[in-house]
Amino acid sequence: MDIATLIGFIVGLSCILITMSTGASGLLVYIHVPAIVTVFGGTFSATFINYPIREVLGVFGTVRNAFMHKLATPTEMIETLVGYATKARREGILTLEPELEKVDDPFLIRGIRLAIDGTAPELIRDILTTELSYVESRHSLGQGILTMMGAYSPAWGMIGTLIGLIDMLRTIENPSEIGKGMSTALVCTMYGAIGANFIYLPLAGKLRTRTQQEVLVKELIIEGILSIQSGDNPRIVEHKLKAFISPKLRK
Amino acid sequence: MDIATLIGFIVGLSCILITMSTGASGLLVYIHVPAIVTVFGGTFSATFINYPIREVLGVFGTVRNAFMHKLATPTEMIETLVGYATKARREGILTLEPELEKVDDPFLIRGIRLAIDGTAPELIRDILTTELSYVESRHSLGQGILTMMGAYSPAWGMIGTLIGLIDMLRTIENPSEIGKGMSTALVCTMYGAIGANFIYLPLAGKLRTRTQQEVLVKELIIEGILSIQSGDNPRIVEHKLKAFISPKLRK
Amino acid sequence: MDIATLIGFIVGLSCILITMSTGASGLLVYIHVPAIVTVFGGTFSATFINYPIREVLGVFGTVRNAFMHKLATPTEMIETLVGYATKARREGILTLEPELEKVDDPFLIRGIRLAIDGTAPELIRDILTTELSYVESRHSLGQGILTMMGAYSPAWGMIGTLIGLIDMLRTIENPSEIGKGMSTALVCTMYGAIGANFIYLPLAGKLRTRTQQEVLVKELIIEGILSIQSGDNPRIVEHKLKAFISPKLRK
Amino acid sequence: MDIATLIGFIVGLSCILITMSTGASGLLVYIHVPAIVTVFGGTFSATFINYPIREVLGVFGTVRNAFMHKLATPTEMIETLVGYATKARREGILTLEPELEKVDDPFLIRGIRLAIDGTAPELIRDILTTELSYVESRHSLGQGILTMMGAYSPAWGMIGTLIGLIDMLRTIENPSEIGKGMSTALVCTMYGAIGANFIYLPLAGKLRTRTQQEVLVKELIIEGILSIQSGDNPRIVEHKLKAFISPKLRK
Amino acid sequence: MDIATLIGFIVGLSCILITMSTGASGLLVYIHVPAIVTVFGGTFSATFINYPIREVLGVFGTVRNAFMHKLATPTEMIETLVGYATKARREGILTLEPELEKVDDPFLIRGIRLAIDGTAPELIRDILTTELSYVESRHSLGQGILTMMGAYSPAWGMIGTLIGLIDMLRTIENPSEIGKGMSTALVCTMYGAIGANFIYLPLAGKLRTRTQQEVLVKELIIEGILSIQSGDNPRIVEHKLKAFISPKLRK
Repeated sequence: MDIATLIGFIVGLSCILITMSTGASGLLVYIHVPAIVTVFGGTFSATFINYPIREVLGVFGTVRNAFMHKLATPTEMIETLVGYATKARREGILTLEPELEKVDDPFLIRGIRLAIDGTAPELIRDILTTELSYVESRHSLGQGILTMMGAYSPAWGMIGTLIGLIDMLRTIENPSEIGKGMSTALVCTMYGAIGANFIYLPLAGKLRTRTQQEVLVKELIIEGILSIQSGDNPRIVEHKLKAFISPKLRK
Repeated sequence: MDIATLIGFIVGLSCILITMSTGASGLLVYIHVPAIVTVFGGTFSATFINYPIREVLGVFGTVRNAFMHKLATPTEMIETLVGYATKARREGILTLEPELEKVDDPFLIRGIRLAIDGTAPELIRDILTTELSYVESRHSLGQGILTMMGAYSPAWGMIGTLIGLIDMLRTIENPSEIGKGMSTALVCTMYGAIGANFIYLPLAGKLRTRTQQEVLVKELIIEGILSIQSGDNPRIVEHKLKAFISPKLRK
Repeated sequence: MDIATLIGFIVGLSCILITMSTGASGLLVYIHVPAIVTVFGGTFSATFINYPIREVLGVFGTVRNAFMHKLATPTEMIETLVGYATKARREGILTLEPELEKVDDPFLIRGIRLAIDGTAPELIRDILTTELSYVESRHSLGQGILTMMGAYSPAWGMIGTLIGLIDMLRTIENPSEIGKGMSTALVCTMYGAIGANFIYLPLAGKLRTRTQQEVLVKELIIEGILSIQSGDNPRIVEHKLKAFISPKLRK
Repeated sequence: MDIATLIGFIVGLSCILITMSTGASGLLVYIHVPAIVTVFGGTFSATFINYPIREVLGVFGTVRNAFMHKLATPTEMIETLVGYATKARREGILTLEPELEKVDDPFLIRGIRLAIDGTAPELIRDILTTELSYVESRHSLGQGILTMMGAYSPAWGMIGTLIGLIDMLRTIENPSEIGKGMSTALVCTMYGAIGANFIYLPLAGKLRTRTQQEVLVKELIIEGILSIQSGDNPRIVEHKLKAFISPKLRK
Repeated sequence: MDIATLIGFIVGLSCILITMSTGASGLLVYIHVPAIVTVFGGTFSATFINYPIREVLGVFGTVRNAFMHKLATPTEMIETLVGYATKARREGILTLEPELEKVDDPFLIRGIRLAIDGTAPELIRDILTTELSYVESRHSLGQGILTMMGAYSPAWGMIGTLIGLIDMLRTIENPSEIGKGMSTALVCTMYGAIGANFIYLPLAGKLRTRTQQEVLVKELIIEGILSIQSGDNPRIVEHKLKAFISPKLRK
C-alpha cells in the first residue's frame, strides 16, 4: 500500500511538473514565497484555531505511520494465526512466547501475551476492543482534520489571490503589466487547489481506507486469539477467520 | 441495459463532436496532450493516494462487467426458476443437474448445486447471502471510487488551467496572443468537466442502479432455490417470487 | 394543482422573454442550435448512462400524469368515502357497484371491488399497501432522475461554453469580435442554468409534493374502505378519516 | 424577537444603502425593472412549479405571523400557568373562565376551556398534541419553501445576468460601452444574492428558531393544563414546568 | 488550548500582513470602511434576522469563555478526584468542604456540595446531567450561529463586490481607472473570505472540539463524585475514571 501512495505522489507530481515545464516561462514562475506563506500558513492557522494544537501535530504522526508501517494483509494475518493455533494445540499455548519475538505488531503481541497469562476471555476481548476503538477514533480525528484542511486550502488560495489582485490592480499603470501581476496572484489559487486535491483530501481518504483495513486485521486478531485460547482445532480457527474476508481471497 | 449506456455514450460524444466541429478552428484545438496528462493523470494520482491500488484497478473490471454481462431481468429469472420448480417437482431435483450447463450465472449454478447436494436450507441461505453482501460491498466501493474521481476531475481541470494561465500571463508580450494561450488553458477545465459529468459520475450512478437490479435478481434466486428445495408447488414458487416485483410486471 | 404549475411556467417564461426582448439584439440571439444540442443532449446522455433507458423515458410519463390527472383533495375523498359509507350502511355494500362507474381513480375502484367481493380485510390492506409502496418508489425514482438532471444540466452548460470559448479565443483576430463569440458561448451556460432551475429541479420538487398528497389520499382510501366494509357508522368513518387532515380543513 | 428581526433588516438595508450611496453613480443605477422581474419573478415561478400554489402563498402568512404575534417567553408562560394553578386550587377550576378574556393565545384558551369542561386528560393531551404537530409541520413546510427560494434566487440572478451579457456582448460596437452593459447585467446577480442572503435564507432560519420556541411554549401549556386539572399544588406545577427550561432562566 | 488558538490567530494574521506588505501599494489599500460596513454589517444583519438577538450576542460570551477559562485536562481532573477520594475515605466526606475554596470549576463545586449534603445519588446524577445537557445545547447553538455566519460572510462579500462593480463599471470613462475601481470592489470579497475562513468557521470548529472536551471532563466529575460518595476505594475510583480516557494517557 505504501507503494500505491508513493506511485500516486510521483505520478501526480510528474504530471504537474511536465505541464509546468512545457510552458515558456520555466518552472521558477510557479514558486512564489509569499504565496506559499499565505496559502499554507493560512490553512494551518485556521486549522490551529479549529483543533487543539496537539491533535493537529498528531496528524503528521498518524499519516507517517500509515505509510511507514506496512500493514499485514488479512490473508497473511489468518496464516499467522492458524500457525499459532497449530503450535498451541500441539505443544501448548505457552510455546507461543518465543514466537512473539519475530512479530512487530504490538496489538498481536499484547493479545497473545494476555492469552498466555491465562486472562479470562471476556477480559481479553474487553481490553483489545477498547484499544481498537481508540485506534478508530484517533484515525477518524485525523481524517476530520485533513478534510477540514482540504476545505480551508482553496479558500486561503482565493484569499491570497485577492490580496495580490487588489494590490496589482491599484498600482498598475501600464496595462501590459497586468498579465504579470495576475500571474503572480493566480499562483495562490493554484497552491490552494493542489493542496486540497493532491495532499489533504487524498490523505484523508487514505486514512479512511487504511482504518478499515487496520480494524479488519485487529478484529481477526481478537477472534483468532480467543479461538486459540479456547483450544479450537486449527481448521476451525481458519474457518472462523475466513468468514471475515471476501470469497475470492479464501483459498 | 448495455444498449442504453452505449446510446448514452454515443449521443453524448456526438453532441460534443458536433458542437466542436461547428467552430472555425476544427477539432484538433480540443486535443492537447499536456492537458490530458495533467487532468487525467492528476485525477488518477489523487485516486491512487486515496485508495489501495488494487481496488482502483478493480473498478475497471467492475465497470466492464456491468456492461458486458447482460443481466437477466427479474421477470426472466422468475420464469427460469418456475421452470426448474416444475421440473424438480415432476422428475426430482437431481434432474436439474443437466440444466445448469445452459446457464451462465455462477450464482444460480452454485445455488442449484447446493440444493442438489442436499445442503441444509439455512446453510444455503447463509452461503448465498454472504456472497450477495460481497457483491454489494464491491460495487459500493466501486461507486465510492468513481464518485471521488468525479470530485477530483474538475479540481484537476482547474489546476491545469491555472498552470497554463500563470505561464501564459507571464510570457505574453503581445495582447493579441492572450486569446490563444487562454484557449489552451481552458482545454484543461473542459477535460475536467467532461471527465466528471460524462464518465465518472454517470458510471458511478450506473453501478448504483446496476447493483440494485443485481441484488434483486440474486434475492429472487435465493428465495426460489429454497422454495424449490422444499418441494413447493410451482404455482406457489411463482406467487412467492412475484411479490418481489412491481404489479405492472406481474402477469 | 395543474393550474399552479401552469402559472409557474407561464410566469417564468414571461419573465425570461420580457427581459430578453428588452435587449437591443432581439430574441433570436438566444436561440442557438448547437448550444441546445450540447446542453440538452449532454444532460440526457449522462442520464442515459446513469439510469436504465426505460426508467429515464418513464419519467416523462410520471411527470405528465402529475399534471394531467387532477388529484382528488383529501377533503373531497373523505366526502366521497363518507357518502359510500352512508349508502353501504343503508342499502348494503353491493349497491356501491354502480357508483364505481362515476369514478376514475383505479385505486379506489380496485379497493371497493375487493370489499364488495368480500375479500378478507387483512388481504385488502396487504394488496392496497403493496400498490401504494410501488407508487411511492416509482415517484422517488422519478425525483432521483430529475434531481440528477438538475446537477448535470449546469455542468453541461459549462462544457458547452468552454467548447465555444476555446474555439473563439483561438480564432479571433479582431478583438472587437470577442464580444460576439463570447455571447454565443454564454448561451450554453444560460441553457444549463434555465434547464436546472426552471425545469428539472422544480419538477423534481413537484413530484415530491405530489407524492405526499397522493400517498395521503391513498391512505384515506385504504382506511375508509376497511371502515366501510366492517359496517362502521358513517359518522365514525368521517371521524376516523378526519384524523388524517389538518384541523383547519375539518369542518 | 420582532425587534431583533426589525433591527436586522434595518441594519442590513442601511449597510447596503450606505455602500451604494458612496458610489459615484447614485442609488438609481441599482434599480432596474427587468432585473427585478427576472430574478424575483423567476424565483417565484420555480417555486410555484415546485410547491402547490396555496402553500407558497401560505408562507407569507406564516412569516407575517412570526413577526406580528409576539410570542410569550417560556418564563412568562410558566408565570401565567402557575397563577392559574393558584386560582384554580383556591377557588375552583371554573373561576379560570373569566381569565381567558385577558388572553390572546388561542391554544392556551382552547386548552383551559377543555379543562374547565371536564374533558378526560388523555383526550386533552391528544387534541392539543395533534394541533401542536400541525403547527410544526406547517412551519417546516414554510422553512422548506424559503430554503428552496434561497437556492433558486442566486441561480435566477445568474440567468438574468447571462441574458443581459449575451445581448450586450452581441450589440456593443464601442468597447467603452461594455462597462455600462455589464453593470446592468450584474444587477441581476446582486438581486439574486441579496434575495437569498438577506431575505429567504434568514427568514427560513427565523421560522426554524421560532418553531422551536413556539413548540416549547405549547408543550409547557399542555403540561401545565394537565397539572392544573389534576389539582396539583401550584409549587409542584411550577417545579414540573421549570424542568423544561435552562437552569439560568429558573429563579 | 488558549495558546494554540492564539498562535493560530497570530500566524494567520502574520501571513496575511506579510503578503499584503510585499505589495507595492502598502497596507492601507486593504482597509476600506464601506466594505467593512457592508460585509460585516450584512453578515450580522442576516444573522440577527435568523436568530433571536439574545442568542447572537450570547455567542460572544461563549467564545470568550472558550478562550479565557482554561479547561482542566481529563488527566488533571482524574488526579483531583482521586485526591478527594483518598481524603474522603480517610477523614470523611465532610472534610472536602475546605478543599472547594481552592477550586474554580462551579460544576465541580456544585457536585461536591451535593455529595457533602448527603443528596441521594440518583438526584445528584439527575441534577448534574441536566446541567451538562444545557452546556451542550448552548454550545451547539453557538456552533450553529458561527457556521451560519461562515455561510453568510462570503455571500455578503460578493454582494459588496457587486455593488462596487456596478457603480464602477457605470461611471468609468477612462479604461485605465478600471483597475482601481475593481481593486476597491474586490476588497469586499476578501473580507468575506477572511471572515468565513479565519474567524467564523474556525471558531465554530473550536467550540465543537471544546464542547467534546468539556463534556468529557464533566462526565468524569459526575462519575467521580458518585464513586466518592459511595465510599469507593481511591484505587477503584481511579480505575473507573481512567476507562474514560485513551490508553496512552493512562499511567
